[in-house]
Amino acid sequence: MRLRLIGIGPGGPDDLTVAAVKALESVDVFLVADKQRGVDDLVSVREQILGRHTTGRYRTIVVPDPPRDRAPEQYGTEVRDWHAARAHAYEAVLHAEVRDDETVGFLVWGDPSLYDSTIRVVERIRDRGVLDIDYDVVPGVSSIQLLAARHRLVFNRIGGPITITTGRRLGTEVASGADNIVVMLDGQLACRDLDGDWDIWWGANLGTSDEEAVAGRLSEVLDAIDSARARAKAARGWVMDTYLLRRAE
Amino acid sequence: MRLRLIGIGPGGPDDLTVAAVKALESVDVFLVADKQRGVDDLVSVREQILGRHTTGRYRTIVVPDPPRDRAPEQYGTEVRDWHAARAHAYEAVLHAEVRDDETVGFLVWGDPSLYDSTIRVVERIRDRGVLDIDYDVVPGVSSIQLLAARHRLVFNRIGGPITITTGRRLGTEVASGADNIVVMLDGQLACRDLDGDWDIWWGANLGTSDEEAVAGRLSEVLDAIDSARARAKAARGWVMDTYLLRRAE
Repeated sequence: MRLRLIGIGPGGPDDLTVAAVKALESVDVFLVADKQRGVDDLVSVREQILGRHTTGRYRTIVVPDPPRDRAPEQYGTEVRDWHAARAHAYEAVLHAEVRDDETVGFLVWGDPSLYDSTIRVVERIRDRGVLDIDYDVVPGVSSIQLLAARHRLVFNRIGGPITITTGRRLGTEVASGADNIVVMLDGQLACRDLDGDWDIWWGANLGTSDEEAVAGRLSEVLDAIDSARARAKAARGWVMDTYLLRRAE
Repeated sequence: MRLRLIGIGPGGPDDLTVAAVKALESVDVFLVADKQRGVDDLVSVREQILGRHTTGRYRTIVVPDPPRDRAPEQYGTEVRDWHAARAHAYEAVLHAEVRDDETVGFLVWGDPSLYDSTIRVVERIRDRGVLDIDYDVVPGVSSIQLLAARHRLVFNRIGGPITITTGRRLGTEVASGADNIVVMLDGQLACRDLDGDWDIWWGANLGTSDEEAVAGRLSEVLDAIDSARARAKAARGWVMDTYLLRRAE
């Protein structure tokens, strides 16, 4: 059976590539994780993408997502256990409801190469050896690239490096000398606690009609970011934010 | 006058977003830098993209690129001088050959936010104040994302950071502790000189019909990479490569 992991971009219905559109058209069955968080709106964005770019000749299987501890003691172990549980749930559905000659599509927000679990879960299904599967990956624009576009940013200083990390590890990266940092998966605005002078370029729910963007000296714009976050959450029922932090010169 | 910086992806004619296709259609005049390096093939890829995705109702102005020292003593200064020269050349062409009510498009390989000078050059034109311009940026898939897709890679270890840098700075980043590094703009395969055990996922001319990909333990695949590089160069007249390096566990 053939699986296709298709990056559909950060949220706008036209923020996926032409190659991704063609990949959508090749799919017989979409497997969709039911995440239970702000799910109605995300489902409707996904349906908007499929409605605009496919002929609608596919079926969709919603797979309940295994429960996950969001504040575990052992982060890596917990994530690996969750990947295993998800692989098991997907395998059961693929085995029971998909024929060997069908093509299965996974819609991945943003790009499958950046802080996304789909590749790891599919590798686990393959490693289990129960199903004979092959798969390919279609890249997509990440939310951080839309962040850069909205702020008209170049992520690197001239010739300089970029660190991409999570809110959880931001303090560690700063302590080890990183001073030009793209932060993803930070629901707590970990940058709030940083010492020193930093500039920030922040955005939330980019690609949707309710996107928010704020830029300035971190200490001066934190209130504006909190307000914008609350607006984004109120408008969509969920908020996904990302930002570039750069030590002020 | 309105400028649009449009990320057209790493090279494949369908590797740009639907939003980018719509942006191409809004353009009256494309400004194209004549880089004089492997230029015939890059021009033909660009023409293939425009031919496939537009109606052809635009004009193209080729702007000779200012000369550039590729091995300067002062890297940052030299780059800034080159940006200034390029801004001056673009401004002269825009002033002489484009009307105020026209929309000007810049085609940017990959994504404008990663190691690309177009945003910086346009900012310089705006700062000079001779022309009244506004501009927007349309993100594109970067060659590093296509690298990840071809190797079915997730760039981060679970919850871990990613460093993106140039070949020029690779040694510095490794010395400061980075062990999961995406390298761009490295025509010399700087990884050749690293101590220790590293795994590499490498690719060249990704998105073209002559793309190359090699993965394995760095010390064991360097010869294969050299051969693949030579093949890519022979096939297209140019080679653009990128890779992920990860310290072996």
